[in-house]
Amino acid sequence: MYKSNVNDELYGANGYNCWLGYHLLENGELRENYSQWASNIVISKEPDEIKIALSELKSGINGILGVDAVVVTREPEQSSCIALGVLGRGQNIDSYVKYDEVVQIGNEGFIIKAFKTGNSEIVVVAGTTTKGLLYGVFSLLRLLQTEATISGILKIENPANQLRIINHWDNIDGSIERGYAGKSIFFTDNKVTEDLGRIKDYARLLCSVGINSIVINNVNVHKYESMLITDKYLNDVASLAQIFRDYGIKLYLSANFASTIEIGGLATADPLDPQVRKWWKEKADEIYSLIPDFGGFLIKADSEFRPGPFTYGRTHADGANMLAEALEPYGGLVIWRCFVYNCMQDWRDRITDRARAAYDNFMPLDGLFRENVLLQIKNGPMDFQVREPVSPLFGGLQKTNQLLELQITQEYTGQQKHLCYLVPMWKEILDFDTMAKGRNTSVKKIITGSVFNNKLGGMAAVTNIGNDLNWTGHQMAQSNTYGYARLCWNPDLSAEKITDEWVRMTYSNYEKVVNTVKEMLLGSWRTYENYTSPLGIGWMVNPNHHYGPNVDGYEYDKWGTYHRADHKGIGVDRTVKSGTGYAGQYHKDVAGIYEDMDKCPEELLLFFHHMPYDYILKSGETLIQYIYNTHFKGVEEVEELRNKWFSLKGWISEEIFLHVLERLDGQLEHSKEWRDVINTYFYRKTGISDELGRKIY
Amino acid sequence: MYKSNVNDELYGANGYNCWLGYHLLENGELRENYSQWASNIVISKEPDEIKIALSELKSGINGILGVDAVVVTREPEQSSCIALGVLGRGQNIDSYVKYDEVVQIGNEGFIIKAFKTGNSEIVVVAGTTTKGLLYGVFSLLRLLQTEATISGILKIENPANQLRIINHWDNIDGSIERGYAGKSIFFTDNKVTEDLGRIKDYARLLCSVGINSIVINNVNVHKYESMLITDKYLNDVASLAQIFRDYGIKLYLSANFASTIEIGGLATADPLDPQVRKWWKEKADEIYSLIPDFGGFLIKADSEFRPGPFTYGRTHADGANMLAEALEPYGGLVIWRCFVYNCMQDWRDRITDRARAAYDNFMPLDGLFRENVLLQIKNGPMDFQVREPVSPLFGGLQKTNQLLELQITQEYTGQQKHLCYLVPMWKEILDFDTMAKGRNTSVKKIITGSVFNNKLGGMAAVTNIGNDLNWTGHQMAQSNTYGYARLCWNPDLSAEKITDEWVRMTYSNYEKVVNTVKEMLLGSWRTYENYTSPLGIGWMVNPNHHYGPNVDGYEYDKWGTYHRADHKGIGVDRTVKSGTGYAGQYHKDVAGIYEDMDKCPEELLLFFHHMPYDYILKSGETLIQYIYNTHFKGVEEVEELRNKWFSLKGWISEEIFLHVLERLDGQLEHSKEWRDVINTYFYRKTGISDELGRKIY
Repeated sequence: MYKSNVNDELYGANGYNCWLGYHLLENGELRENYSQWASNIVISKEPDEIKIALSELKSGINGILGVDAVVVTREPEQSSCIALGVLGRGQNIDSYVKYDEVVQIGNEGFIIKAFKTGNSEIVVVAGTTTKGLLYGVFSLLRLLQTEATISGILKIENPANQLRIINHWDNIDGSIERGYAGKSIFFTDNKVTEDLGRIKDYARLLCSVGINSIVINNVNVHKYESMLITDKYLNDVASLAQIFRDYGIKLYLSANFASTIEIGGLATADPLDPQVRKWWKEKADEIYSLIPDFGGFLIKADSEFRPGPFTYGRTHADGANMLAEALEPYGGLVIWRCFVYNCMQDWRDRITDRARAAYDNFMPLDGLFRENVLLQIKNGPMDFQVREPVSPLFGGLQKTNQLLELQITQEYTGQQKHLCYLVPMWKEILDFDTMAKGRNTSVKKIITGSVFNNKLGGMAAVTNIGNDLNWTGHQMAQSNTYGYARLCWNPDLSAEKITDEWVRMTYSNYEKVVNTVKEMLLGSWRTYENYTSPLGIGWMVNPNHHYGPNVDGYEYDKWGTYHRADHKGIGVDRTVKSGTGYAGQYHKDVAGIYEDMDKCPEELLLFFHHMPYDYILKSGETLIQYIYNTHFKGVEEVEELRNKWFSLKGWISEEIFLHVLERLDGQLEHSKEWRDVINTYFYRKTGISDELGRKIY
Repeated sequence: MYKSNVNDELYGANGYNCWLGYHLLENGELRENYSQWASNIVISKEPDEIKIALSELKSGINGILGVDAVVVTREPEQSSCIALGVLGRGQNIDSYVKYDEVVQIGNEGFIIKAFKTGNSEIVVVAGTTTKGLLYGVFSLLRLLQTEATISGILKIENPANQLRIINHWDNIDGSIERGYAGKSIFFTDNKVTEDLGRIKDYARLLCSVGINSIVINNVNVHKYESMLITDKYLNDVASLAQIFRDYGIKLYLSANFASTIEIGGLATADPLDPQVRKWWKEKADEIYSLIPDFGGFLIKADSEFRPGPFTYGRTHADGANMLAEALEPYGGLVIWRCFVYNCMQDWRDRITDRARAAYDNFMPLDGLFRENVLLQIKNGPMDFQVREPVSPLFGGLQKTNQLLELQITQEYTGQQKHLCYLVPMWKEILDFDTMAKGRNTSVKKIITGSVFNNKLGGMAAVTNIGNDLNWTGHQMAQSNTYGYARLCWNPDLSAEKITDEWVRMTYSNYEKVVNTVKEMLLGSWRTYENYTSPLGIGWMVNPNHHYGPNVDGYEYDKWGTYHRADHKGIGVDRTVKSGTGYAGQYHKDVAGIYEDMDKCPEELLLFFHHMPYDYILKSGETLIQYIYNTHFKGVEEVEELRNKWFSLKGWISEEIFLHVLERLDGQLEHSKEWRDVINTYFYRKTGISDELGRKIY
């Protein structure tokens, strides 16, 4: 391992071990209680397939309980123990799990079951696969670390989503598009990293929260990245795949749709051209000969200057199916992004609406994709703004495998300089009711595939990970990685529950710490929204790097991202009646809500409607006064964030305490910049004063 | 020569030869007339010192008249001729120039004198130095190329300005800061170029218009550029200096004020530290041992994050004088830039005014600089905007050598994608009456040193030259280089006259061409101003690259560049009475004009005053209507520019015709973008409609 997770004193303090720091439980009584059974681990006679699970279990127990557990291969007689193993191999572990329990355990699931026998307590941890067992071990350790009651437990868990994917936007030169935590852990100077120790630590981190798929390179595939599927790089990629395989994670690559031209020596990338199809089939043969469990390709095509099937007059279905056909014999998948829009729009054009683009492009193709294709759909119709409505493709598409794409890296949400915990936002997205098959057709159900009987489904997210020692730049941003993965596993988990787990595992179980940090995290997204762009309008950021306020930053640009503010009002009319018609892309029951300014959720009001500044909101405030109020309030909330953190001095390792404090100080300054720029912009444009007479410039 | 200037068919057509294309005179009668005397060139017996002059003369005559002139060293008897030589060397040439003429010729001056003797016409071209003679030759060729009357001419010319400087902002990696015509001609990949042929062609171009000083590297001196004064580069720099020396041009370097630290191994750059002073003296010894006529150092200190004397609690005078002391034994100069301001301003701060900075920083130092120091002062108080008032340091400083700094490269004026001929602007600057010693204390007089008896003075400008085949990207932008140099030589030349010369020398003497191109050039600055930022306010550009409209681009930034527009009015109050007090930095007679909104020249109204949109201008238009009108008009004027150029189809070499046409097409599109963004911004902010009901978005 790159940095031993046992050297807590050395590395736990800087955040390298994230939620796997396994600090000693504070509660001595509980520690003793757990140790009675956790000091003995009973395994079968075939330790090879459970080697990693066993090692993780031992090291976790050592950290959490301070106990060096004894591993035995015989059945214990009088002593309490953990019984560990894979079910269905004719081993002793089978005898602890009943038939009606076993049938509930899927190929990624596990059981944790505790029962008394005589004076002994047996805690069974088992899966029907090695991977399931690993998830079970990490789950048990989480229970210990969060001080759960184990006695009498019967916990059978399977992941809700088949695909639980991390997307890296890493370039092979080592840079990371939208990365805020250092350089790539995979690539440096156009080579695959030699620091495989860190990759192993990473695989372990992801496995501990149930991630089972990883795309290691940027969706924007440039010259050298195109060569990842050539012999120049494939052996190195296979080495990475091996590391992830041990932790139950399949490796995928982003591929260049024009690979046949770029690296194949052909004159075309036409998906219907027989030579092109042949080339990809042979390429698949080559890849799978080195990486037998290769996950497949992630494709960004015909998007932001990336090549695609449009060049040849073909559809996205033609493009995706051609690749899918090549991968199908090996069980590989094609993940096709729906982030397709006109990025050369004239700001003077009020007919074209970028928000419509994904739906307009992909709905006509519903049902035309092969079984091993998934469409990867960004949560909202624009691009990871702090507040957007849910993409109408969810609930629109019925005959197509779907992935929900989220963004963990904080491109538009403070770039890991600001604390912005996204789990509450993601919960809203997952819980959003598309009404597609009546009430309760939530996004989280659709993406599992269960609503429309899609064969595949799941979630993907752009990671916030880099080679900073603490992985995420802002140490607290680890919580977003954690939370994303936990929601992939079980989207019904509450934000409160996930946050509670993360704080206890990362910092401690002291109630002061748990309560304070939870409050900080759970309110931080709304705080960020308060001092940035209001009411769903978005895009009031500096172009290109997307950091910091710039109200007109995208207003006269070509990206289709406008607020249309004038001295009387602001917002984009996306209604069917008088606007771009975007609202009509939703199921009629939802469309009716967005179409009507009185019914439209106020947090999205300006996304759907152009409203006068003197419009009265439900709170009784005018729209302009709401803007002022939220912006002043946002800064006050950052002050509170800082005060809360400061109250934890002495309760958090000094290095992390000071590091987070410094970020919060920066956030406070920068939130004032946001407040003042936004308020000043609107004050200057409207001439309407703040009712409370606060300082506007 | 890199590209022969004789191969007109090959290279003349693409603009490489600029105004030295020497195309055959269209007027056959005149050609014959000139050829009578131009076919014979009489020189002294020492051709070495006049070798280059002679070669230039011969090649020019060959091109312009189609004549291969005969060179003889005896005095001609009956035949007409050109008599060429350096005066005061006891040669025959002396006998043609009277004593009262000789005394008028300075060490860079020349005489051109034509007289009849019998049936012969003698045309004397002479200087008192080789350099003066060279200038005389290029002047004679210009007269021929522009169809001037030579018979009976008596022309004695001396340059108005001692220092006529070109500044390169070239970096040693080959990039050019604010360069729009390719890469550096001097540097590539951290090395000095090996393409010395092109450098020679460049030296010749500059010499032909009287430039006598060149700074070859960027004022922002980074790591490798700091080493230009070390043995790593000095020999290569000496080779460049040799080439320029042949054409009467001294080479200067931009130096890093912190060189003692960066390359000297000292711990300080404190200008009063004896070790620092010693280091620089030894460095001067080293440089001058290789480049005996080295010009000196250009220094950007304590500006935009460059190091300087402030670090050590010293003044700019301390810093400059320390360097001046080191160079003084060799006659070297220190040119110290006055572009010093707070580039970390808070936009909320309305007290600090960047416009004040140069004056506030340097006026207290007037009289404290050594005799071989010059202050280089940008024409305006901000940064090369399309319209600024003249810097109050001109007329303010009295006991200090001064250089006027202009910008030929079109950073804020269309980046050589737009046609923007700057000579009319520069004329206004040079003619600006500071009133410092009563009426007619113009800037052009002050910088010669004559008003306040300063020992040194002149002009410097940032070049628009790069390694594009036509040197300037936009071929017509060559006119700005030409015009700048001609104004250095003689600021009393009218814009009309300079333009006439350039068109005739570059394209042809056909009246249709001359008149059309002159109209295009002379109106283009005002046209550019019309469709960009109005009434002297400036800065409505995209940050960093400074291209294209962005009204709020610098409004909430840290650079001290604000327009303060709200729904009622726009402009910066820089009056003494109620504003930042900047107006008070001028001589009281000028200050009184700027202070009073009724007297303030309207083109600078918003630079000095915050005005309501309904303010009535002298034209009878409201301010807002003026903004609309000029922006619609600007685009119409670009359409006219394009039409004018199009009317020259067949009159201009096809390559240049199409190249310029393409730029004008681009300018037309982009001027519409400017018009629409600016008009829309103000319409949305004010709600005031265009009286003529034209389209605003």
